Amino acid sequence: MSPESKFRIGLVQMACSADPAANLQKAAAKVEEAARAGADVVCLPELFRSRYFCQKEDPATFDLAEPVPGPSTERLGEVAKRLGVAVVAPVFERRAAGVYHNSAAFLDEDGRFAGLYRKMHIPDDPAYYEKFYFAPGDLGFPVFAARRGSVGTLICWDQWYPEAARLMALRGASVLFYPTAIGWHPHEKATHGAAQLDAWVTIQRGHAIANGLYVAAVNRVGHEKPEGEGAGIEFWGNSFVADPQGVLVARASADREEILVAEVDPARIEDVRRNWPFLRDRRIDAYEGITKRFLDAPPGAAR
Amino acid sequence: MSPESKFRIGLVQMACSADPAANLQKAAAKVEEAARAGADVVCLPELFRSRYFCQKEDPATFDLAEPVPGPSTERLGEVAKRLGVAVVAPVFERRAAGVYHNSAAFLDEDGRFAGLYRKMHIPDDPAYYEKFYFAPGDLGFPVFAARRGSVGTLICWDQWYPEAARLMALRGASVLFYPTAIGWHPHEKATHGAAQLDAWVTIQRGHAIANGLYVAAVNRVGHEKPEGEGAGIEFWGNSFVADPQGVLVARASADREEILVAEVDPARIEDVRRNWPFLRDRRIDAYEGITKRFLDAPPGAAR
Repeated sequence: MSPESKFRIGLVQMACSADPAANLQKAAAKVEEAARAGADVVCLPELFRSRYFCQKEDPATFDLAEPVPGPSTERLGEVAKRLGVAVVAPVFERRAAGVYHNSAAFLDEDGRFAGLYRKMHIPDDPAYYEKFYFAPGDLGFPVFAARRGSVGTLICWDQWYPEAARLMALRGASVLFYPTAIGWHPHEKATHGAAQLDAWVTIQRGHAIANGLYVAAVNRVGHEKPEGEGAGIEFWGNSFVADPQGVLVARASADREEILVAEVDPARIEDVRRNWPFLRDRRIDAYEGITKRFLDAPPGAAR
Repeated sequence: MSPESKFRIGLVQMACSADPAANLQKAAAKVEEAARAGADVVCLPELFRSRYFCQKEDPATFDLAEPVPGPSTERLGEVAKRLGVAVVAPVFERRAAGVYHNSAAFLDEDGRFAGLYRKMHIPDDPAYYEKFYFAPGDLGFPVFAARRGSVGTLICWDQWYPEAARLMALRGASVLFYPTAIGWHPHEKATHGAAQLDAWVTIQRGHAIANGLYVAAVNRVGHEKPEGEGAGIEFWGNSFVADPQGVLVARASADREEILVAEVDPARIEDVRRNWPFLRDRRIDAYEGITKRFLDAPPGAAR
């Protein structure tokens, strides 16, 4: 017997303009559209209130940050309450002067600010200069209680870390959301684009399989090119839902705004985990090394 | 600058008969064939000296076990020395009366028994009754020094555990071998077979991506049906090599004996890890929960 009932998740794949007010308005409309399509829990893309500003380092950009709770959670909380849906709302969080996070607020079906995740793994790569903007999260890997089931949210770069997905699974999540802003460097697209996109889908499907849970990646679309900053990033969309065996049950296009709605079925989780009982056999006595940066051996010794 | 040079790995996908001597003879011949095709390190399938006997529980089957070092490592060590190749040689290990392991011996290019891995994650599912036969490994996740690079070996069920792959990567492995015996229950093949095979490939490609290293899965082929034990298992072959970005660079058929040879290029590992520096950003301060079975919350609390 599984304690949860089926519920539906909604993924909002959208383009984001330079106007934070317009983006919030659009996001609110799309949450409503997802709810009317049957979604019980709706997830928006990472940093949806703005362009992906991390393509350059500019102290003035911190003006885009806001407190949590704050304007975004208030507006989306109203929508959540009115429609009776829960919302995963990414926010550029201003916690204090000089302390900013790449966060996701969980708004429950009554519109309350009911949980916060702060991105734990912060990238820093050409055109993804996030270490300049975001302090690493300090809230660990919490899971939130939606009315119909437990949901976890991680953010973008987190998706490359099996540890993060595992910890969410061990806390009882039935579905992991990954609000994301990822795309192609236009000059790399022809040579590396297909492999990059495939790797991104594959590793997240792997998390679904390893943990026997649903994974929902929620990306933006559009080509964002900051002035004087090179070719920009072509965000690759491809938002998707994988089931607990890693099967793709929904997938969006690379370049259009779309809403995906998919079912989370606890009976499916139960069935997959009974047949592939990976959680049973974990060697928790032998995983201590996971908390090390690298397991160096003395020079010359067999490693 | 990478300290290692390129080398080639050989994967022996073979069928295994009921005759241990014949299987060893065949394995020796195939190691030689792989070496002549250019392989520097050759991996044989899990428990290649016998049928996959774990389809039923029979105390008499322990007669198949042998010490390590022992007859298999001696014979294959001779081959390794003569050809100047290293060999990953799975063995049903008899350690003491009542203490058996599902192991893999590492034989270096001089034919010496130079390392041992004992399968850490032991399955127990219908027709895979391994918990009856094998004590869980107690050697952790060691990496072996082949002449041209560091190699790790895990075994079959281990392939579903991101922790195992991660620990091998943190010890410096450039390639992870997964000698395996996995296949379809014939009655499930039509309905679940494609998804099962795809999940098996996907999660291992995920390990390659998460860790920026090569993964080589080495499976057997053939339909093995023990007397009076139902429909048996149709081993699905599909041995493959994934590169550090998860790209499949070699893949075998589902039903034929084959030898795959693929290159391990440390410069490719270096390049992928520079562009996707996942190891840099691991939150080692926040992974302690990985060593717990499950992270329960008090009843009624948000999880």
